Amino acid sequence: MNTQRIGILGMGSMGRALASTLLEAGHAVTVWNRTPGKAGDVLALGAHEASSPEEAIEASDLTIACLLDAASVRETLTPAMPTLTGRTLVNLTSGSPRQARDLAGWLGKHEVRFLTGGVLAVPPAIGTDEAVILYSGPRDLFGRVAPTLAPLARPHWVGGDPGFAALYDMAALSGMYGMIAGVVHAMTLVQADGGDVEAFQREVLQPWMEQMLPLMFAESDPDESNAGMQATALEIMLGASADAGVPAELAGHLRAALWEMRRAAA
Amino acid sequence: MNTQRIGILGMGSMGRALASTLLEAGHAVTVWNRTPGKAGDVLALGAHEASSPEEAIEASDLTIACLLDAASVRETLTPAMPTLTGRTLVNLTSGSPRQARDLAGWLGKHEVRFLTGGVLAVPPAIGTDEAVILYSGPRDLFGRVAPTLAPLARPHWVGGDPGFAALYDMAALSGMYGMIAGVVHAMTLVQADGGDVEAFQREVLQPWMEQMLPLMFAESDPDESNAGMQATALEIMLGASADAGVPAELAGHLRAALWEMRRAAA
Ligand SMILES: NC(=O)c1ccc[n+]([C@@H]2O[C@H](COP(=O)([O-])OP(=O)(O)OC[C@H]3O[C@@H](n4cnc5c(N)ncnc54)[C@H](OP(=O)(O)O)[C@@H]3O)[C@@H](O)[C@H]2O)c1
Ligand SMILES: NC(=O)c1ccc[n+]([C@@H]2O[C@H](COP(=O)([O-])OP(=O)(O)OC[C@H]3O[C@@H](n4cnc5c(N)ncnc54)[C@H](OP(=O)(O)O)[C@@H]3O)[C@@H](O)[C@H]2O)c1
Repeated sequence: MNTQRIGILGMGSMGRALASTLLEAGHAVTVWNRTPGKAGDVLALGAHEASSPEEAIEASDLTIACLLDAASVRETLTPAMPTLTGRTLVNLTSGSPRQARDLAGWLGKHEVRFLTGGVLAVPPAIGTDEAVILYSGPRDLFGRVAPTLAPLARPHWVGGDPGFAALYDMAALSGMYGMIAGVVHAMTLVQADGGDVEAFQREVLQPWMEQMLPLMFAESDPDESNAGMQATALEIMLGASADAGVPAELAGHLRAALWEMRRAAA
Repeated sequence: MNTQRIGILGMGSMGRALASTLLEAGHAVTVWNRTPGKAGDVLALGAHEASSPEEAIEASDLTIACLLDAASVRETLTPAMPTLTGRTLVNLTSGSPRQARDLAGWLGKHEVRFLTGGVLAVPPAIGTDEAVILYSGPRDLFGRVAPTLAPLARPHWVGGDPGFAALYDMAALSGMYGMIAGVVHAMTLVQADGGDVEAFQREVLQPWMEQMLPLMFAESDPDESNAGMQATALEIMLGASADAGVPAELAGHLRAALWEMRRAAA
């Protein structure tokens, strides 16, 4: 293996998972966190702790940022810009496509080689087969860093536009939040109306959602779903939720589906 | 097999699927529809067409109603009540738990034996292994009619409360609508921001949602999901959707998830 020197800015739960996985893969890792003393286990695995972002960047061939949001990335990188010039940064902080494009523009002016990443995994999944990290930005740069980053998660390049990894990441998360909203609403409704939540979840909801999910992506037969009948069913669900005292906010996904159906019918 | 005489009120797409499956299972089926001439294929398979609900009920050991909504069930059964007295009705019309309980109360006064049903299947799935019909109402009555109804879908009794089949049905549908809302939002977002919708769906969204769905039902490790980070991610998704011009209504599931997270944190 080709040992690389990697800097990681941010020792939150994701930053620590990235650091320990790269250490286990044999890389030399230097970490930094705004609040000192958060690196814990990662230092025991052999990481070096830097006292500033500049120090971590300077000690590395490749720097990864994994902070709370785009504002914290700006705040952290601004004083380090002279050090970062001519080097490579991969931003694994979640953000919007616009934030990713703005960051790419700013870094480009300072001749920083830059990839946006979107982590489709929770920290414990980092380093497992299930994890995927989406990347976007220059394809040749992706080709050069992908072997180093591959131990973290399956690297999947989604285009040259630095916004695309953020876009696909946000869109995939929004799909997941639809499932969460649906599950939470379903369980709240059953609970509120005196049903057996545990039996409902195990015997009805989970098998039903697992059966339906692949069908969302299959070619749909327009004949099957009578829009009038479906809109009626959605109104009944909204009514049943109100009857049972389920907070109206939880039915946001039902309203979204109803709105979409009306728009499609118009 | 024990051939039964079954009446079916409603020759919409679901009523026709029920009728043809019961005919194929060898039962004698009499059908009625408000607008005549809708039974088509079902008559070719050997059903008899009744000219009134009373005629269909009178010709049958068991009557199934599969109409648009609770109001249409009331309207159809009111004049037929003297005929229905002492007989068995299974209502496979979708409705709210309250509507199911009200109907059960009314039918009970007229000494009608009654089960509520909730059809967890689209019409083409009726008669296949994937279909489930939830039933609630008296357990002994369920035991007597389940063998007759089993060819339609796996019969699953969920309790004596006539509202429970409706409750579990509505709740399961609301879970599915969450998935639909999430998928529609995800695809709309990618499209609006110039992404490759087809590649996104096939390579990112579908595998991700299929991987995440079972985790929604697993025991969750409270350590994994930092509520502040998740709330930030949701706000970013809402912002990205607004940036890309995705209609605000479509983000209802994101708002529902955010609301739920804030409530849980409070
Ligand atoms: N955890 C997940 O499941 C997951 C999954 C996919 C993507 N992500 C993304 O990964 C990123 C990190 O998530 P996480 O789970 O590690 O979050 P976290 O545990 O909440 O950690 C947040 C990190 O950001 C740092 N930070 C916050 N504001 C800062 C500022 N103004 N300047 C410098 N540092 C700042 C914090 O440092 P202090 O210790 O000094 O506060 C901490 O290191 C987020 O963008 C998140 O959306 C997370
Ligand atoms: N299709 C599905 O995917 C599906 C899945 C699960 C459950 N369901 C439930 O099954 C039920 C029937 O659905 P469907 O797909 O068959 O709907 P559909 O194709 O729209 O048929 C509606 C039926 O209701 C009848 N109807 C409407 N108003 C009436 C009234 N006032 N009096 C008498 N009859 C009336 C219609 O008769 P006319 O021909 O005279 O209008 C027609 O037979 C609904 O409750 C639906 O929610 C459907």
